[in-house]
Amino acid sequence: MRIIDVREVAVPLHGAIANSVVNFAEHTVSLVAVRSDVRRNGRPLTGVAFNSIGRHAQGGILRDRMIPRLLAADPESLLDPSTGLLSPARVLDRAMRDEKPGGHGDRAAAAGAVELAVWDLLAKHHDEPAHATIARAFGRRPAPTGVPVYAAGGYYHPGDSLDRLRDELAGYVDQGYPAVKIKIGGLPLPGDLARVEAAVEVIGDGSGVAVDANARFDRDQAMAYATALAGLGLRWYEEATDPLDYALHRELAEAYPGALATGENLFSLQDVRNLLAFGGVRPDRDVLQMDAALSYGLTEYARMIEAMEAHGVSRSQAFPHGGHLINLHIVAGLGLGGCESYPGVFEPFGGYSPDCRLSGGLIHPGQAPGFGLEAKPGLGDEITALLKEMAS
Amino acid sequence: MRIIDVREVAVPLHGAIANSVVNFAEHTVSLVAVRSDVRRNGRPLTGVAFNSIGRHAQGGILRDRMIPRLLAADPESLLDPSTGLLSPARVLDRAMRDEKPGGHGDRAAAAGAVELAVWDLLAKHHDEPAHATIARAFGRRPAPTGVPVYAAGGYYHPGDSLDRLRDELAGYVDQGYPAVKIKIGGLPLPGDLARVEAAVEVIGDGSGVAVDANARFDRDQAMAYATALAGLGLRWYEEATDPLDYALHRELAEAYPGALATGENLFSLQDVRNLLAFGGVRPDRDVLQMDAALSYGLTEYARMIEAMEAHGVSRSQAFPHGGHLINLHIVAGLGLGGCESYPGVFEPFGGYSPDCRLSGGLIHPGQAPGFGLEAKPGLGDEITALLKEMAS
Repeated sequence: MRIIDVREVAVPLHGAIANSVVNFAEHTVSLVAVRSDVRRNGRPLTGVAFNSIGRHAQGGILRDRMIPRLLAADPESLLDPSTGLLSPARVLDRAMRDEKPGGHGDRAAAAGAVELAVWDLLAKHHDEPAHATIARAFGRRPAPTGVPVYAAGGYYHPGDSLDRLRDELAGYVDQGYPAVKIKIGGLPLPGDLARVEAAVEVIGDGSGVAVDANARFDRDQAMAYATALAGLGLRWYEEATDPLDYALHRELAEAYPGALATGENLFSLQDVRNLLAFGGVRPDRDVLQMDAALSYGLTEYARMIEAMEAHGVSRSQAFPHGGHLINLHIVAGLGLGGCESYPGVFEPFGGYSPDCRLSGGLIHPGQAPGFGLEAKPGLGDEITALLKEMAS
Repeated sequence: MRIIDVREVAVPLHGAIANSVVNFAEHTVSLVAVRSDVRRNGRPLTGVAFNSIGRHAQGGILRDRMIPRLLAADPESLLDPSTGLLSPARVLDRAMRDEKPGGHGDRAAAAGAVELAVWDLLAKHHDEPAHATIARAFGRRPAPTGVPVYAAGGYYHPGDSLDRLRDELAGYVDQGYPAVKIKIGGLPLPGDLARVEAAVEVIGDGSGVAVDANARFDRDQAMAYATALAGLGLRWYEEATDPLDYALHRELAEAYPGALATGENLFSLQDVRNLLAFGGVRPDRDVLQMDAALSYGLTEYARMIEAMEAHGVSRSQAFPHGGHLINLHIVAGLGLGGCESYPGVFEPFGGYSPDCRLSGGLIHPGQAPGFGLEAKPGLGDEITALLKEMAS
């Protein structure tokens, strides 16, 4: 098996919205295809993935640095000697050749898309859903039939009202989501608190409502919200402050009795180790949300899960950022805590495909080989166009 | 004053070599020009800068994200209201609009080149060397006439020998450099130690020899080198391990009596705060090497210097990574410890221009307005070509 081509296209996000920090209207995502010389049904076997949501397409880094390195590599050097198939870890190593240490940002998302496309390719080679390939590769038992999922929403809308928010969240309950996450930080505290209380009222209990500040708060705001939210028994309080401010995270963990969630803006094993070493993460309750597609792919992400477990944090406390099919398969394959879902936004990458079933509070991956991205309306067309470009 | 165009070109490094981790043969650097509507001698006033050395050109991030944001901005919003001139901090804020927190990597270098080009433009507007503009902006007295400089080299060469190394270092002494830095980590410890001892012999004293491991070592290697080097009284022991491994840096600081140097792979204020909080930095001896051109520019870099000082580390312990004209002006303008110089390599960006005088162990900036990049052989031609492209 050898790589014969790698292509990237930047795809705009539709249904884009704003959180308290970022407007997603101009955001794009890198859709990446890795084509092999193996033929299946007369066509070259091709793996496809993308670099999650929220940190931009990375066409420059891919075309200027990583794709040329992969195409220049000795094909043998990219294979797992025990299988003769492409090794995601070796592909990652090669994509990262001559990169200096540190600086885990855009590069991590570029590499993540490539590495995950190799996983998609391997799963297609085995003609099985990616979660099965992932479970086997990491020595896990075959994946369960479904993984816990919650609906993330509760954005701020022009002319917003508590009634609109209640209707939105009631809609998620009607669709079968057992829990929700809403944004905070876009209003002064009393207005935000009224929203959170309305959400608790709709869901029936604080344990079904998480809140997300998108790293907006300074120390005093973070602490004021911690005090105000402490009595509500929320599911979790997410990314109050700068994701790299470990000292402040520790202070917050000492002040807030409920679960804290963070990690979606940590893109390397070393950053996660630092959070665990210095951030006051409480093994019995806190939630970690790193996203393989933003952080060098599954090879690095699996090491992050190992580091979590070494710190006493259960993998059931891992809820990857993103709300997309790739993380659904990773959560199922590695036996993690669950997935998020952003109903109706971040299309065509966000959300799940029609062959994924939501029942009993669980989302069940479909049976298509790989991550099943081709089955997703809108995304399937983008993939077809990219593959067609590769053929020409 | 308003920005009318921003352009980037990726320029290959010549005289490229390898350290123990990275081969620079494929490296490129982003040369960035920011053109204003102000005319000087019949031509539009244009600021020029680049994103240092070692972390690649960033044309994708600049063209896809940052340049469009700047050109779409309300021109008034980019001005310092007190001067009516472009504000580097406001230009940076706008270039970073809709970027999520964390992830300080490639993006920091892209933003750094743009922000520094604005400083070059401001200095040209005032018709003065950039160090004068910088000193005034940060409330410093006019810059001294020269700043301490050392020669960085001692790379591994094919068929290398101690005699070749001695000749190289003696050459630096002949050129007037009072101190040197050599690489370690490319040989087993005994071979490296022989090189370091040869260097100490040439310079006459360990206090004139720094060593740089380029973050290559694991814990045991770092500690073994610490033990072996401890008695030599070296100038400093640089980047032994992963630049983000603060716990290991603390351990090393507790074990090694001499100065440690690090920071060239930290690209944000928060990362520097973490190093200071958790890395065991000793205010009385350690050296910090952050590089504005890799870390969002001078606005962010000046905040890093503030954070250092708040921790008790003198600004005379700041020796920016890079060995180029931009950092020469920053060191002079902010009154920092000194600069490095890589004689003969990393051209056309590395090193200083013929109008910079080396005497008494000090390098003296020239009198050209701005960073004086136009006076640098090789780089001047690249700038001329870029400006010509802007005109067309």
